[in-house]
Amino acid sequence: MAEKTFSRRNLDFTLFEVLQVSELIRHDYFKAHDTETFGFTLDMASDIARQIMAPAFTESDRKQPELENGQVKVHSSIHEFIKTFSEAGLMSAPFSEEWGGIQLPKVIAAAAEFIMGSAHNSMVMYTDLTKGAANLIYTFGNPEQKAAFLPKMLSGEWMGTMCLTEVQAGSSLSDVATAASPQADGTYLIKGQKIFISAGDQDVTDNIVHLVLARIDGAPKGTKGISLFIVPKKRINSAGTLEPNDVDSIGIYHKMGQKATPAMHLEFGGKNDCVGYLLGEINRGLPQMFLMMNAARLGVGMGGIHIASAAYYAALQYAQERPQGRRLNEKQALVEPVCIIQHPDVRRMLFLQKAIVEGGLSLILQCYQYLDLEKVHADQPEVKQHYNQLLELLTPVAKTYGAEMGFVAVNQGLQVLGGYGYTEDFPLEQLARDVRIMSLYEGTTGIQAQALLGRQVVGNQGKSLVKWFEEVAKTVHEAENSASLSTYWNDLMSAMRNFQEVTNQQFKNAAHGDMEVLLADANLYMEAFGILNVAWQWLQHGIAAEKGLGNAEIQGEERIFYQSKIETLRFFFHYELPRVQGLFHRLMDTTRLTIFDADAEVLI
Amino acid sequence: MAEKTFSRRNLDFTLFEVLQVSELIRHDYFKAHDTETFGFTLDMASDIARQIMAPAFTESDRKQPELENGQVKVHSSIHEFIKTFSEAGLMSAPFSEEWGGIQLPKVIAAAAEFIMGSAHNSMVMYTDLTKGAANLIYTFGNPEQKAAFLPKMLSGEWMGTMCLTEVQAGSSLSDVATAASPQADGTYLIKGQKIFISAGDQDVTDNIVHLVLARIDGAPKGTKGISLFIVPKKRINSAGTLEPNDVDSIGIYHKMGQKATPAMHLEFGGKNDCVGYLLGEINRGLPQMFLMMNAARLGVGMGGIHIASAAYYAALQYAQERPQGRRLNEKQALVEPVCIIQHPDVRRMLFLQKAIVEGGLSLILQCYQYLDLEKVHADQPEVKQHYNQLLELLTPVAKTYGAEMGFVAVNQGLQVLGGYGYTEDFPLEQLARDVRIMSLYEGTTGIQAQALLGRQVVGNQGKSLVKWFEEVAKTVHEAENSASLSTYWNDLMSAMRNFQEVTNQQFKNAAHGDMEVLLADANLYMEAFGILNVAWQWLQHGIAAEKGLGNAEIQGEERIFYQSKIETLRFFFHYELPRVQGLFHRLMDTTRLTIFDADAEVLI
Repeated sequence: MAEKTFSRRNLDFTLFEVLQVSELIRHDYFKAHDTETFGFTLDMASDIARQIMAPAFTESDRKQPELENGQVKVHSSIHEFIKTFSEAGLMSAPFSEEWGGIQLPKVIAAAAEFIMGSAHNSMVMYTDLTKGAANLIYTFGNPEQKAAFLPKMLSGEWMGTMCLTEVQAGSSLSDVATAASPQADGTYLIKGQKIFISAGDQDVTDNIVHLVLARIDGAPKGTKGISLFIVPKKRINSAGTLEPNDVDSIGIYHKMGQKATPAMHLEFGGKNDCVGYLLGEINRGLPQMFLMMNAARLGVGMGGIHIASAAYYAALQYAQERPQGRRLNEKQALVEPVCIIQHPDVRRMLFLQKAIVEGGLSLILQCYQYLDLEKVHADQPEVKQHYNQLLELLTPVAKTYGAEMGFVAVNQGLQVLGGYGYTEDFPLEQLARDVRIMSLYEGTTGIQAQALLGRQVVGNQGKSLVKWFEEVAKTVHEAENSASLSTYWNDLMSAMRNFQEVTNQQFKNAAHGDMEVLLADANLYMEAFGILNVAWQWLQHGIAAEKGLGNAEIQGEERIFYQSKIETLRFFFHYELPRVQGLFHRLMDTTRLTIFDADAEVLI
Repeated sequence: MAEKTFSRRNLDFTLFEVLQVSELIRHDYFKAHDTETFGFTLDMASDIARQIMAPAFTESDRKQPELENGQVKVHSSIHEFIKTFSEAGLMSAPFSEEWGGIQLPKVIAAAAEFIMGSAHNSMVMYTDLTKGAANLIYTFGNPEQKAAFLPKMLSGEWMGTMCLTEVQAGSSLSDVATAASPQADGTYLIKGQKIFISAGDQDVTDNIVHLVLARIDGAPKGTKGISLFIVPKKRINSAGTLEPNDVDSIGIYHKMGQKATPAMHLEFGGKNDCVGYLLGEINRGLPQMFLMMNAARLGVGMGGIHIASAAYYAALQYAQERPQGRRLNEKQALVEPVCIIQHPDVRRMLFLQKAIVEGGLSLILQCYQYLDLEKVHADQPEVKQHYNQLLELLTPVAKTYGAEMGFVAVNQGLQVLGGYGYTEDFPLEQLARDVRIMSLYEGTTGIQAQALLGRQVVGNQGKSLVKWFEEVAKTVHEAENSASLSTYWNDLMSAMRNFQEVTNQQFKNAAHGDMEVLLADANLYMEAFGILNVAWQWLQHGIAAEKGLGNAEIQGEERIFYQSKIETLRFFFHYELPRVQGLFHRLMDTTRLTIFDADAEVLI
């Protein structure tokens, strides 16, 4: 792994100068914190990243976990990581003080995860899933369930997973078939198989708490008959000790990347002895699970970006150290070679990476900030709804931009290294394998795009989108004060106006009630929406950077940092924003080419 | 591997209906052939692909070659493949009858390689490099050299490689430092190291014929002091037997993909006993090597496309067989799931793959056809130059489109499979790892883009580009006869006019002699040029398909085939061609953002 995998200066800038997350402290729930305690958390994350995670990055990929005699053994570094992470209080940190947490804002917890994920993107899977599962129990569990599971999970003694996918269902959750049969004691007997369960088995913790979607006998078909169950790998028997709960690891997937985290094929109740505990309401499993899934979506978007951050710094270091060729205007063939960072095309690739990493990170952290703002405005329904609508609208795009553009960025990083990038001698090839999963996890890009256009834009009659327009307009309004940003806020407003037209066209497409026509090009709509959102982030960065530059006392590296922000903003607006033109062109085009017609099949 | 990795019907269509390669037979050099003999070659390639190559695709990736005691051992299937390929006469086929060949047009040989490469993309590396090295000896060798090496290479008893890259030089060939010291007997002692030598060592053949760029003692610095040498792994001693020639395998690279072909770090003359034979003229090594390199570039572009073909058919089969979800307009939630090929977004991904695979293949085969046309017009310098200029112009884009868009297509294929695509249970993850090398081999995309814009467009005062415009105009003219193609030839002409403006802007950029400004966005120019070229190919396919459809006797699958061509043409024009808009926007933009400025560094 390269020495540097992220920029703390950029993270602090985004958190404190752009998003101004310190304002959260004004709210009662976060009052125990200040900028310093936030900083301590990030320092701690950096220490763990440097000392435990980065050193194991390569080896834990080469020695991937195997399933032997029904048990998965993971790399030794995973043991150390989970122990250290939990003992440092990072698992419980975002939870309430009642459960031993420190009520850390989620945006700070996410920033800590960004740091750690940049050092080792598979390791954070374990802890992220456990936090998500614990949050579900925290939100929907009854007092007994909370008492039984939360302390163990928040201390890292037990881990958690989410079990949705089944062989026959895939992304179509309405086809979930795992059965739950009510028992006299109020528990359920669970029977069925789940696939692609990340961290679904390991030998680090005594127990694994699976959150399982299943169908209670006689429940309605479709999504309205799905309930959510806590299904531990081992259950607590009457003697208070752990006993097997008939959860079997029946297969392990060998994957292209993220090899340190096993993806499991699990069987529940193969011997008809798997006990599950209903979590929350009967038949409300899917909407409840969305709480975890939406958090996981942000986590996956972040995954794309933290991997891209590691790739960016590895490529940057290589470009700064690798002499090759001469500047293109050099007339003398025999002067010493220059480092490749001097070549415009290499600079273009690095700028693109930087623009994606810092812009994407900013978009995702803004979503986490909305989560915190929702939390602190629990007693102001309108304000809470405001943030909730923005969050629901932006979650699919934060996930998708991070996944898809993170993939682009990592592959640009690999390209900077030339042939070396393709070899195991540098981390790029592994990062490129790792990042490829992000557009598949937690709903593929196609699923996210349909959720965006179908549910959040059209399904919502554009209400959330109007709120989003207003938020962008606020930024533009602020930018109007800066002469040097005028080209850019103008460009963004112009693109936004075109996007409005494009969106009107989508409403027209939907007017006939034809969902296939509406959603056929949802992916392109998503791609354009992602570019606009990150352009918006860059405009926010530009405003904050101008403030920094306006202070004449700021000199040296700090001034260069702010100038670099302005340069990257310019890069994004000159190179990335124009890409919406081709997308808009297609999105205004009403020629239908991809709708299935049974009479004209075999056309592909 | 999926059952089908390519479409023979599409290949025949492209060769015989679009490119009309049968017309080559009218020329004396190819007179021994007819459409049937071409067909036999393709049948033979299909047999080898099915029987020997495809079955070894997965295993030869999982058990990658290792360097042990100075010797690389490759997978057993490689032995069988090289033997069968050579015995079938495929190694010698494109060579003249004088050397045991059958004077097969290169476009047919390339089509055969497409078939085989779609079944196993690493295996064809061995034979392709050997053919390329043999062609170099055939072209520049003296009678003794030809007699010593060609029969052995064309029979597959010895393999060949190309040795350009050195640690300190990378893409900058002017920095090649391997030394060649003249000996009294007319040979040279070679001393130096070469890296990334594909198939640079193996245990299949008795000998390996390395073609090595080196610098004769006292030669001018830079590219004008580089000569080309034949440096066999084993030399023939006075007794007529093979003896070691001091060529050592000192390292093997472990790569992300294409694992069945070792990339070697070789040392020549570590014991000062490595003999090389000058090939061709002193200090003309680089232009001579370009003969092999240009052929290799086409081969790499083809590599991207044949891998994308395998990925396309694997994804198509999965989409046709995998039930999941319901059609988006289905009101009843409980009907049986449909196969995912019915979902518009899946269809969009499959269409994109098909458009890239068939359009890219067509562009590359057209380049091979130019090679054949150059050959048969050897005695008509103007005609020969015409094809040569087109070939030189299109070689970088054929390479780059195949590499970059092949990568896009394979990753779309992986996406079609959802989570399964990321696992080793399907070939997609391996194909995605394999295809990633193509934008690095034989000059990265950045290098190709500079060659295109710097050398072939501006360096050439636009002469080649004018010829290309005329060729495209001919197709448009032909398309004007078809009412159903009118939207598309109009779209292409309109894009071509904009491209002319964009090109004029590049000439203006170059007017000040500032090569950094000219080439800073060469990659974007390349990307747009690739889209235009493939749009052109699709218009040619449309014309040929319309001809097919005009014949009322054509019914059933054949009619569906032609209709599918028209549909894919439409897809390309509605989804891919509009992408040039964003690229053109940036290419007309004169704001410079990526030029290195030593006074303002650390800005990235």
